Amino acid sequence: RSRFADSGFDKTSVRAIAADSGVDAALVHHYFGTKRELFVAAIALPTDPTAVLEPVVAAEVDHLGVALSTAILSVWDSPSGQAVVAAFRSMIADGDTSLISTFLLQIALKDVSMRVDVPKGSASLRVNLVASQMSGVLLTRHVLKLEPLASMSTENVVAHIAPTVQHYLTGPLPR
Amino acid sequence: RSRFADSGFDKTSVRAIAADSGVDAALVHHYFGTKRELFVAAIALPTDPTAVLEPVVAAEVDHLGVALSTAILSVWDSPSGQAVVAAFRSMIADGDTSLISTFLLQIALKDVSMRVDVPKGSASLRVNLVASQMSGVLLTRHVLKLEPLASMSTENVVAHIAPTVQHYLTGPLPR
Repeated sequence: RSRFADSGFDKTSVRAIAADSGVDAALVHHYFGTKRELFVAAIALPTDPTAVLEPVVAAEVDHLGVALSTAILSVWDSPSGQAVVAAFRSMIADGDTSLISTFLLQIALKDVSMRVDVPKGSASLRVNLVASQMSGVLLTRHVLKLEPLASMSTENVVAHIAPTVQHYLTGPLPR
Repeated sequence: RSRFADSGFDKTSVRAIAADSGVDAALVHHYFGTKRELFVAAIALPTDPTAVLEPVVAAEVDHLGVALSTAILSVWDSPSGQAVVAAFRSMIADGDTSLISTFLLQIALKDVSMRVDVPKGSASLRVNLVASQMSGVLLTRHVLKLEPLASMSTENVVAHIAPTVQHYLTGPLPR
């Protein structure tokens, strides 16, 4: 976890983590799988992101806005959502922000990113914009608890947010 | 500041703050003006929100998205923006979130709110949605520093965000 936090996801090798732990990289791969899976294990998420994102992977491109906001909001509104919000707050407080960035870009939004790179090269910006909308919902609904947003049903929030998310993913970009 | 944090803006009276300080409420009003102005003084903002929001007050309703996102992003991108981001982080860390909520709803978005209550009663939700988008930009651009968002010009970010803000303020609402 400290390797990922200090060096970021890309610059952290499984080999280095294995060395820190005094074991062989093959052993880490055997128990944890890919680097992405190791990262997920390291941040000890209360839910399995692969399972959460399954409906997003299965969704048509022009339905990604609804699928993605439903998947993410459902986790936050579930019993394990409180743990996610608490982790988010403590990472912001500690300045441990590279773990959040890595999670957002390498785990939560990675598959979507590969599907919305139209025109070529625009995927990073599209995914940044989605992250800005979704993290702001986490903040206003679950941390600041602004009303009426905090008390609305998951479906109702999705109805308001999904068109924005869809627009950022596949809509025309200015310039 | 602790009164506002503990009781919230609405339930805090200037009289109570004056009593805490062992002075008469009239003296507080004389030096600080309205409760809103007292709140602004209490959180010691590095910029005067009334001045920042002047172009927003002057903007036509169908231009509020551009005016509001330009005004807010310009502060964050200014030299005093760092202090705003630091204050935001420490409030999230401390759980001092009622100060942020009060600032957002009673100061930053109050005037806009009164102009977008169409249909009647929808203003709170509209302003919540704007807060979700704008606070998410603060988080992803200035705290997480996601790229390319973190390195884009103010104008370029406005070009991407303003249509969303305008939609939340004056667009049709689902249901």
